[in-house]
Amino acid sequence: MNYSIIRYITGWVVFTISLFMLLPAVVSLIYKEINTATILLMCALVFGLIGYLIKLKKPSDRRFFAREGFIVATLSWIIISLIAALPFWLSGEIPSYIDALFEVVSGFTTTGSTILTDIEALSKGLSFWRCFTIWIGGMGVLVFILAIMPQASGQAVYILKAESTGPSVGKLVPKLKESASILYLIYLSLTVVQVILLLVADVPVFDSFCIAFSTAGTGGFAPLNTSIASYSTAAINIISVFMLLFGVNFNIYFLILAKRFKEAFANEELRWYLIIYFAATAIVGTSLFISAREYFNLTDIFFQTSSIMTSTGFSTVDFNLWPSLSQAILVMVMFVGACAGSTGGGIKVYRFVVYAKTVKKQLSSLIHPRSVKVLKMDSKPINHETIRIINVYFATYMLVFVASLLIILIDGFDLVTSFTAVAATLNNVGPGLGEVGPMYNFSQFSALSKIVFSLDMLAGRLEIFPLLIFFSPSAWNRK
Amino acid sequence: MNYSIIRYITGWVVFTISLFMLLPAVVSLIYKEINTATILLMCALVFGLIGYLIKLKKPSDRRFFAREGFIVATLSWIIISLIAALPFWLSGEIPSYIDALFEVVSGFTTTGSTILTDIEALSKGLSFWRCFTIWIGGMGVLVFILAIMPQASGQAVYILKAESTGPSVGKLVPKLKESASILYLIYLSLTVVQVILLLVADVPVFDSFCIAFSTAGTGGFAPLNTSIASYSTAAINIISVFMLLFGVNFNIYFLILAKRFKEAFANEELRWYLIIYFAATAIVGTSLFISAREYFNLTDIFFQTSSIMTSTGFSTVDFNLWPSLSQAILVMVMFVGACAGSTGGGIKVYRFVVYAKTVKKQLSSLIHPRSVKVLKMDSKPINHETIRIINVYFATYMLVFVASLLIILIDGFDLVTSFTAVAATLNNVGPGLGEVGPMYNFSQFSALSKIVFSLDMLAGRLEIFPLLIFFSPSAWNRK
Repeated sequence: MNYSIIRYITGWVVFTISLFMLLPAVVSLIYKEINTATILLMCALVFGLIGYLIKLKKPSDRRFFAREGFIVATLSWIIISLIAALPFWLSGEIPSYIDALFEVVSGFTTTGSTILTDIEALSKGLSFWRCFTIWIGGMGVLVFILAIMPQASGQAVYILKAESTGPSVGKLVPKLKESASILYLIYLSLTVVQVILLLVADVPVFDSFCIAFSTAGTGGFAPLNTSIASYSTAAINIISVFMLLFGVNFNIYFLILAKRFKEAFANEELRWYLIIYFAATAIVGTSLFISAREYFNLTDIFFQTSSIMTSTGFSTVDFNLWPSLSQAILVMVMFVGACAGSTGGGIKVYRFVVYAKTVKKQLSSLIHPRSVKVLKMDSKPINHETIRIINVYFATYMLVFVASLLIILIDGFDLVTSFTAVAATLNNVGPGLGEVGPMYNFSQFSALSKIVFSLDMLAGRLEIFPLLIFFSPSAWNRK
Repeated sequence: MNYSIIRYITGWVVFTISLFMLLPAVVSLIYKEINTATILLMCALVFGLIGYLIKLKKPSDRRFFAREGFIVATLSWIIISLIAALPFWLSGEIPSYIDALFEVVSGFTTTGSTILTDIEALSKGLSFWRCFTIWIGGMGVLVFILAIMPQASGQAVYILKAESTGPSVGKLVPKLKESASILYLIYLSLTVVQVILLLVADVPVFDSFCIAFSTAGTGGFAPLNTSIASYSTAAINIISVFMLLFGVNFNIYFLILAKRFKEAFANEELRWYLIIYFAATAIVGTSLFISAREYFNLTDIFFQTSSIMTSTGFSTVDFNLWPSLSQAILVMVMFVGACAGSTGGGIKVYRFVVYAKTVKKQLSSLIHPRSVKVLKMDSKPINHETIRIINVYFATYMLVFVASLLIILIDGFDLVTSFTAVAATLNNVGPGLGEVGPMYNFSQFSALSKIVFSLDMLAGRLEIFPLLIFFSPSAWNRK
């Protein structure tokens, strides 16, 4: 293990998160919230200095491998959460530090589960900070650092791999720094476009920014207690579309920018993403139309499916009241999730497509044992290692799921609440069903459960392996 | 596809099931149920003749491969269910044929789910037949035929593979016929021992036979409406132990008979089977002790965990009333199931152990990419093909699960009922939670759902692949 490079990057992380904190501080000043502004500025100053000092000494050794990537990603995400939770706790707006930590982890991991019972009671500065954590977490704080840090070595691609979503992360262009910059520029531009459209659709300025941040990171924090329900239908439809857009692999936007349209639209994962989305919408719609016509509303149906599948978690209606078939579809797309390489959560469409192809191949080889077929994705053969890791991913995913469920069941909530609470946090969705449905929150769970949920959210965002490796002692050997 | 051998074996199947029907006919005569006895004898006579005629002509071609094995297994199981359901329907004791079919499929597949609301209203003959189907299905009707059929070729091992449980089925001794006979002898002897012990524990003669059949096949049909609750504590404990015994791989009993004790007790799957069983019991017990002490009773806890994990499905208490942690544990062991090569259902401990080992290996190779490890089970390397098929098994299993769930959700039952109903049938357990809990039954579902459940039970018993291949057109090519 190369400890000196880990120290150096951690320094950059602490420094960067302090920089980000200046933005909510400015918002606080605009709204004349002197107390909040002071706390935010103090935190920014103290941690900015600490981060600067840590990164002052250049690393003695720049070697960097997969293991270092996993460790540094997990460590960074834990550190930024610990720091970003402080203003909520210091200001007294969230009296318990565990609660503040849950809220901030939920933000960074773009989950959007909340322990707050009255969101509108927050100061504007902290309400902004809460939504802004989603934007930071969506594309990743380390990807940001890769874009701004001088002389990142090529081996730092392992950081990109550990922090980005999906099983096969690659660079867009040969230079890593440039790849990271392009990703962030696409991300920023789409966010800006959404802010403008929301303003046009009569959403107040403050809300437009907060909601655009939450949509971009597919997080789901909103500044109002009613989530999205009180905005205009136009605004709701805009958000529906943007949630879907942010659930698409960013490589596709890069291809479009590079005018490689054919490649962009031939993407198999994108096709399946849309097929699953529209199939789910159709079933939910039919089920509502037949057995609960009072809830049948196309805007809501498109919105809710898009919100759950991309793991955003905004709500316009209480889908706890929908028929069980609709609810089951929502729980299923919760697991499917968005595309690899997007800001969305869940297991990812890519993994499911590869998984389904493996099954199809194996079944046909049971019938015709001597036939030889090669699995392909986007007309290219899929690497054997990728298939194996996807299989293991599913297995590990289930193990983490079951283990978490067993611990939180100690709190004694019913099975639907407990199951969907784990599903909503591990898939970074936000709301579940039952007592964690869209009209409820996570405040009633014990501190132990809140810690488990926080770890699940981190595991979901970093796609499990980094976190497991972080907690396995053998990863920390010097050798 | 070799159609002539499929015809020949199907003839044997029809002939054999008619022979089996003579036993309940005798029981009916003993209890002077003339009507039931006549119907059973008529069915036995008619199908005995039909079967005899079909198998009269020897097959022109004795070649036999995996594909033929899958097809013949599925076909046989469908045929015996269609025939065995007739007496229930003809006698009018189950007025709907779909219901009768559900009941009989539930028996043969050793599931034990029922659509009957009053079991004690059945005639003794049909009550006996109902439990006896479990005994037939437990070890498999084709394995029985392999034991009695003259000149079965060595290639017929594919039949054994298709009908037995677990991913790697082999012969106990070089000769197939002898292997099948040994399996059935062990099965019969254990059943006889259980009958004797139950008689000693004050269980009436008729009930002792029925319950021993149900335990042996890990089915769960009982002759009384109260399932097992009204027998003595001694009887309940005897059943607990025998359920566990029938959940063990029968190869281990063979090794014990052959005095190869060291091999028998070094079995890794057996070890994990017991570890999981006792861990589950401990958690269920602790959970009951802490939060629902009125239900804390060691006999019930051991019995219920054993009943669900081995997929038997007997009940002594209404575990719907237990705390959700206990319920979740029961649902989890429902999926784990018993050992490969036993009469128990579920995914099987063997597959989970291999799965867990794959995960462990992959995680350690993420930390140390250059280390090379070989997966071992019982100190022998596991075949790559076995690992791949196990991975595909999990995937296919989930697909079947999700597809079934979506269809039965149309009936509009709540999520817990629907989810556990599919889990209970696909894992061949019997009762679930909610409205399919131990105090309820499956009668309230629609005909469509009952057909889906019947297919799920067959898929569970034959371990999915045979059924999928049976329904895939490309398997039926002549080539």
